[in-house]
Amino acid sequence: MPKAKSIYFDHSATTPVDADVLKTMLPYFSENFGNASSVHSFGQRAAQGAEAARLDAANFLHCNPDEVIFTSGSTEANNLALFGMFKALRAKKPGAKLHLITSVIEHDSILEPVADLERSGVAVTYLPVDARGVISVADLEKAIKDETVLVSIMYVNSEVGSIQPIKAAGKLIKKINERRLKDWNNKKPEERGDKPDPIYFHTDATQAANFLTCNVNELNLDFLSLSGHKIYGPKGVGLLFARKNTPLRAVQLGGHHENNRRSGTLNVAGAVGFGKALSKLTPEKQERANRKIAAVRDLLASGIFKLVPGAILNTDREISTPSHAHFSFPGVEGESILIALDLAGIAVSTGSACASNSLKASHVLVAMGIKVEVAHSSIRFSLGKDNTKEDVERLLKVLPQIIERFKKMSPLK
Amino acid sequence: MPKAKSIYFDHSATTPVDADVLKTMLPYFSENFGNASSVHSFGQRAAQGAEAARLDAANFLHCNPDEVIFTSGSTEANNLALFGMFKALRAKKPGAKLHLITSVIEHDSILEPVADLERSGVAVTYLPVDARGVISVADLEKAIKDETVLVSIMYVNSEVGSIQPIKAAGKLIKKINERRLKDWNNKKPEERGDKPDPIYFHTDATQAANFLTCNVNELNLDFLSLSGHKIYGPKGVGLLFARKNTPLRAVQLGGHHENNRRSGTLNVAGAVGFGKALSKLTPEKQERANRKIAAVRDLLASGIFKLVPGAILNTDREISTPSHAHFSFPGVEGESILIALDLAGIAVSTGSACASNSLKASHVLVAMGIKVEVAHSSIRFSLGKDNTKEDVERLLKVLPQIIERFKKMSPLK
Repeated sequence: MPKAKSIYFDHSATTPVDADVLKTMLPYFSENFGNASSVHSFGQRAAQGAEAARLDAANFLHCNPDEVIFTSGSTEANNLALFGMFKALRAKKPGAKLHLITSVIEHDSILEPVADLERSGVAVTYLPVDARGVISVADLEKAIKDETVLVSIMYVNSEVGSIQPIKAAGKLIKKINERRLKDWNNKKPEERGDKPDPIYFHTDATQAANFLTCNVNELNLDFLSLSGHKIYGPKGVGLLFARKNTPLRAVQLGGHHENNRRSGTLNVAGAVGFGKALSKLTPEKQERANRKIAAVRDLLASGIFKLVPGAILNTDREISTPSHAHFSFPGVEGESILIALDLAGIAVSTGSACASNSLKASHVLVAMGIKVEVAHSSIRFSLGKDNTKEDVERLLKVLPQIIERFKKMSPLK
Repeated sequence: MPKAKSIYFDHSATTPVDADVLKTMLPYFSENFGNASSVHSFGQRAAQGAEAARLDAANFLHCNPDEVIFTSGSTEANNLALFGMFKALRAKKPGAKLHLITSVIEHDSILEPVADLERSGVAVTYLPVDARGVISVADLEKAIKDETVLVSIMYVNSEVGSIQPIKAAGKLIKKINERRLKDWNNKKPEERGDKPDPIYFHTDATQAANFLTCNVNELNLDFLSLSGHKIYGPKGVGLLFARKNTPLRAVQLGGHHENNRRSGTLNVAGAVGFGKALSKLTPEKQERANRKIAAVRDLLASGIFKLVPGAILNTDREISTPSHAHFSFPGVEGESILIALDLAGIAVSTGSACASNSLKASHVLVAMGIKVEVAHSSIRFSLGKDNTKEDVERLLKVLPQIIERFKKMSPLK
């Protein structure tokens, strides 16, 4: 059983379902339990719940409800964006040269589909990041070729919390698309060839949604992935925003749900909870929460600086979400710190939960130029809206001793 | 709001979540909310819940827990079985001729991936069904070739409830696999070539799990798909049983969850509820429920025969699950009956919920030799464990008048 006083600093891995999100979901398990595809009123009550949730999602994203595809999570949304778009492009133009641009710090649910596409003949450019964990729009501009059909850059990095320049990248892509079209229009009709495809723009906004605007028009996005369980909603539900008329073919087949873009009985209770969680992320509430979380995070960071000699903050707070404080404690294994803190009732992580069984150094930290042995000494504190000053005080009571004890034991000292 | 007296005869589309299934799930939303991949105790509590559910699933299937892959539902499980197996086979033997056998009455989540595989070069044989909606094992035997690598036959048809001869098919496949191996062993080593691949056997057991044994060893299965929401568990969760060492590659990539076979943060509450729902399906409880449901279904069928002249029962009760009574009412549109019954507070369907927006006649009924115009006059009554004699009496009070009224209005009369 959980100890009453357990403290949770791992909100990037997952978040608890908000009490009123759960309350909103409950009637959809055993009362309004219908299949949203059913014609009768059991089905229609379920469909109404799901469609209200779709509207909440559309409001959050500033898009049309029919541009929202509910999925089982952001891993599926990322897979659908990548595989579904290339499936559509290849069907439209068999044999065409295709190029995509992504970054070296994406989540595996981007990097692995990209590697799969690369093996099947798509050319790929991986943008590097600077020491803060941020790509450069100038690098993006240089990487764009005539064959570039997709740019997929995450909005916020899950490990260090760095915000990527999505708005500037969107502006650049829009400018290039307009130029492509203008150049084509300026050609003589007989020299034109096919109308040029635009470059489509996808962002994995999984780690951004709590803190940042996800207005797909302001950001000039064609695709955007979100997850329920990272925003105090349930696990097992996510979405892909896919702008109308962008090329996209279903990857999971059979049943033609979600306007033929994702088959499978809709997880109504999940969608309802997800919609409720999204409806709570108004700009005003985000801003208020951001200020509160940043204050607690800053207390945590300054406390660690003061009490733990040699600690390195890998999160650049100027360009990161307020949630993150990613530290290295050179000379001590991150895994050992994690376990010692857990025994003290404090949950942190060494990086992405998905990679928690891997002994490889984080590809994100390595890309930021952090040495492998320093990367291995890292702890990610990811804060949420319910963390308090007292939580930080509890942490600061135990962390310095833990680090000191391990340093004394270390053969490296 | 649902009327207090609404009656639900559409359990093949979905079922309400059982009260104690929901009760088991509840702590996993906001208390034991951790990411099951996280190392700390929040994560481990979540993982313990999910692993207990995996054990429940393994007990139901008589397999090892690590042969259970949690998915978002049986549509994903079916897609994974088909695409994942052919992905693995093609990686192992590039360019090899591959043949698969399925039936004409499968769900779209089988038929569409199969069509996709067919377009990519896999040879496919579609087994026909007889007038009862059942394939023949003799047809299966005739269809098997040297290149056959997979047989995928549903366990129970969702529309008419017909049970397929899975046990006999499994025996046949086992016999052929043993013969293949024996023939190979009897050859001289220099003439042998590669060891022959066995024929793998998959069943979509989505509609069977409530009523029939799903012992994968007795049935000689390599793959089996299940869904949570058809067995009084939640929507958004399902599983694929994949026997150890069968070829299978992940389709949804990124994160290496489920032993590298399905990426994406595990839907812990969903898995916990699914496990609980499966744990309630012991042979004794199944048998007791089957008897009760069959009695109510038989009352419904004999009542309709008595009160509705010309009604045709397309479900052969001798070879079907007790849940189904699929009727045609020639001369009346099924859709009109559905809507009239819904207005009377009774939920039925015209066929599969997934196809409820389609005007095409059911491919299942057409395959059974039913004329298109008769197929269009069909209503599926699919009963569940909570339906009562009183529900049937309510139905029988309104259905005859509805049919009579429509018959009078029909231009066909």
